[in-house]
Amino acid sequence: MLNFESMKAQLISIGNELLIGDTINTNAAWMGHFLNDFGIEVTRVHTISDEKGLIKSTVRKSMQESDLVITTGGLGPTHDDITKTTIAELFEVELVQNEEVLNYVKELFKSRNIPFSESNSWQAMVPGNCEILFNKAGTAPGMWFREYDCFLAVLPGVPYEMKYLMKRKVSSKLREQANGIGYIHTEYLKTAGIGESTLSDYILGDLSEFLNDHVSLAFLPSFGEVTLRITGKGSTKDEATERLSTLIEYIRKKAGKYIYGDQKEHSLSERVGKMLIDQQKTIATAESCTGGLIANTLTDISGSSAYVLGGVVSYSNSVKVNQLDVQESDLDQFGAVSKPVALQMAKGVAKLTGSNIGISTTGVAGPGGGTQEKPVGTVWIGFYSKEGKKEIHFAVKALFTKDRLVNKQRTTIVALEIVRRILSDIQELPYSLTKEFA
Amino acid sequence: MLNFESMKAQLISIGNELLIGDTINTNAAWMGHFLNDFGIEVTRVHTISDEKGLIKSTVRKSMQESDLVITTGGLGPTHDDITKTTIAELFEVELVQNEEVLNYVKELFKSRNIPFSESNSWQAMVPGNCEILFNKAGTAPGMWFREYDCFLAVLPGVPYEMKYLMKRKVSSKLREQANGIGYIHTEYLKTAGIGESTLSDYILGDLSEFLNDHVSLAFLPSFGEVTLRITGKGSTKDEATERLSTLIEYIRKKAGKYIYGDQKEHSLSERVGKMLIDQQKTIATAESCTGGLIANTLTDISGSSAYVLGGVVSYSNSVKVNQLDVQESDLDQFGAVSKPVALQMAKGVAKLTGSNIGISTTGVAGPGGGTQEKPVGTVWIGFYSKEGKKEIHFAVKALFTKDRLVNKQRTTIVALEIVRRILSDIQELPYSLTKEFA
Repeated sequence: MLNFESMKAQLISIGNELLIGDTINTNAAWMGHFLNDFGIEVTRVHTISDEKGLIKSTVRKSMQESDLVITTGGLGPTHDDITKTTIAELFEVELVQNEEVLNYVKELFKSRNIPFSESNSWQAMVPGNCEILFNKAGTAPGMWFREYDCFLAVLPGVPYEMKYLMKRKVSSKLREQANGIGYIHTEYLKTAGIGESTLSDYILGDLSEFLNDHVSLAFLPSFGEVTLRITGKGSTKDEATERLSTLIEYIRKKAGKYIYGDQKEHSLSERVGKMLIDQQKTIATAESCTGGLIANTLTDISGSSAYVLGGVVSYSNSVKVNQLDVQESDLDQFGAVSKPVALQMAKGVAKLTGSNIGISTTGVAGPGGGTQEKPVGTVWIGFYSKEGKKEIHFAVKALFTKDRLVNKQRTTIVALEIVRRILSDIQELPYSLTKEFA
Repeated sequence: MLNFESMKAQLISIGNELLIGDTINTNAAWMGHFLNDFGIEVTRVHTISDEKGLIKSTVRKSMQESDLVITTGGLGPTHDDITKTTIAELFEVELVQNEEVLNYVKELFKSRNIPFSESNSWQAMVPGNCEILFNKAGTAPGMWFREYDCFLAVLPGVPYEMKYLMKRKVSSKLREQANGIGYIHTEYLKTAGIGESTLSDYILGDLSEFLNDHVSLAFLPSFGEVTLRITGKGSTKDEATERLSTLIEYIRKKAGKYIYGDQKEHSLSERVGKMLIDQQKTIATAESCTGGLIANTLTDISGSSAYVLGGVVSYSNSVKVNQLDVQESDLDQFGAVSKPVALQMAKGVAKLTGSNIGISTTGVAGPGGGTQEKPVGTVWIGFYSKEGKKEIHFAVKALFTKDRLVNKQRTTIVALEIVRRILSDIQELPYSLTKEFA
């Protein structure tokens, strides 16, 4: 019997395109995260070419060393795709036709009006000792084996199909094993505009009383954001969830205002969008140094046309003056990267579009254009909103990096987080930046 | 003696963050490409944790199987970083202090005003049998070994430092080996706005007379672009380059108008930017369905403020009417996703900003908002330019996919490629789209 709580896995990514470097192996990282959420540790990833001997020896050795092995790739209908026949050879079984898969593929072709050729029926041939992982996201089924006291999942390499099978099929196989042995429950809390060390050392402090063999916490930082991953183990789902609850409650109490979401795959721009819809507000952007990235990030969200009225990318001073009502005298006196210009841009774009909220950026993105007074990375972000008689209007100054693209990205996250905090009535700004008024 | 023309390599990526999935292994893909340009085939990539026994056995076995092994990761100054001591143990040698590295690290700390602690001198300790690959991009030196009739390069995992050492140090080590054995020369031709199969089957046709053991060609497709990689082998640099020249000349003759660049790392927006500078022209964007992505892509290029005057993101109709002079009657009659609106937006933004060129997009990005007449993926792109009395003003209609982000990306590439072709006086549009006039 496998011990689910200490299950070890190896991944095998099959395909020449991965070795040549034409494709980046994002599957392995995604699967690493996914299995980790189950408390399964990935100890090795093998990336190998479509070569029979290599596939055989790697699968055999990995299965002997671990509790779970997952291969991706080489399941297509062409001659290069040899994973299936190789696995059958390894286990010394024949390929047999699976009627259910055959009918499914035939129906699929019919519904798409594509003629079904005999070579397509190849997709329905599977090794005799496998259990089918039915794939509604494509034509190649996944396969599940139990050999050498180890589980083996054989999945397609197309990320969309792999993810479908991991979420729908492999996960329930793993849960079957977990039954009665242990249950893993994972939650995420996503924060923005606060540094990892500030969050950990000053806000949350010593968490050792909450952490033990059953409850663990990880900090996952990315550009301007930190995600907290909290994992609980228990003999039942309720026990695992229950064990997390005290810690989550404590984190929410201490750091609630920094948390914008608890869904792993949701983004800050999605959160801001939801709040704008709930509060029936609209937004517009006036971007200089971010050059359209804020508008682009906001409009990546489906349905954003309901609250994004539009934006202006004001690289030239004449656009700032003519479109956004920036005072020419202020541009002359203080320069384009300055508090008065950021303030006027934010208010200007709100007036121009009739939006409730205007957000602006002006800065030295780099690599050129820095001065001693305004080095590369200097950014002003302006915020304006009006609701009835209540007007909020301020700007903040930040200093980021020497890297142009990092500066654009960071400015965008901070700007969106400012909008989120104002919409949530939170006084403290990202990174404790100071509000400067007109 | 190693045979450079058939050299085989294995890569070993060391680090728990890669297995958990917190970091995607982009290093391996980059190195795969890089080595391929030298004609070196990567046969395996191993991703393993920072564990002594595993590092030892994987390095030993890989070296026994190949001509070149490269490890990345585990060279930092903390206790987790065990690659260096493990390699020394594997080769049964002592760590010795390298004075040159020590002085370099001391100087670096001094110039940054950071106190130098004894633990920092750890960076200067290296296995006695290695040659130093001096790392000016960081503090951990790379190391070069020759053992088991194989070369081993031990590099830091930070992508920036790894790339520095591969380009500056490992490449010259490889060239030393190549001396007198063989030389590999690689060139790239980058195209946009033409499908891979059209380019290969109809434009270039049968290339077999050019291809042989010394000359090879690969098609590398990505979003709306296809890069041609042409590799030549010879006993000298001149011979390798010479062997490519006939094929490259032929491709340029047949497909010249689709080629926007011959530098592997240059982008289409960089090319458009260079042409605008050369022709002393300026550009402005009027974006609806792309929501700022075109402006964002143009302004990712350093120095783009010289030719990007600005842009308008016109999600709402009122912004289209008030800022871009779109006729309200046309919005009513034809809808926002229509030829007259695309035409008026392009001209409107050029007038508004005073730019020479205006480019516009309006479409159904999806996933919602499609109709039978205008399904998701329907996009109109407008172009306007004026030079003296010569006015160019047209729109094109395209149908892309059901995916919102793919549609934004594709529209952006096609729009930029339209600008490049007009600036190059090429009549044919991307994907042979048809110019429609007012």
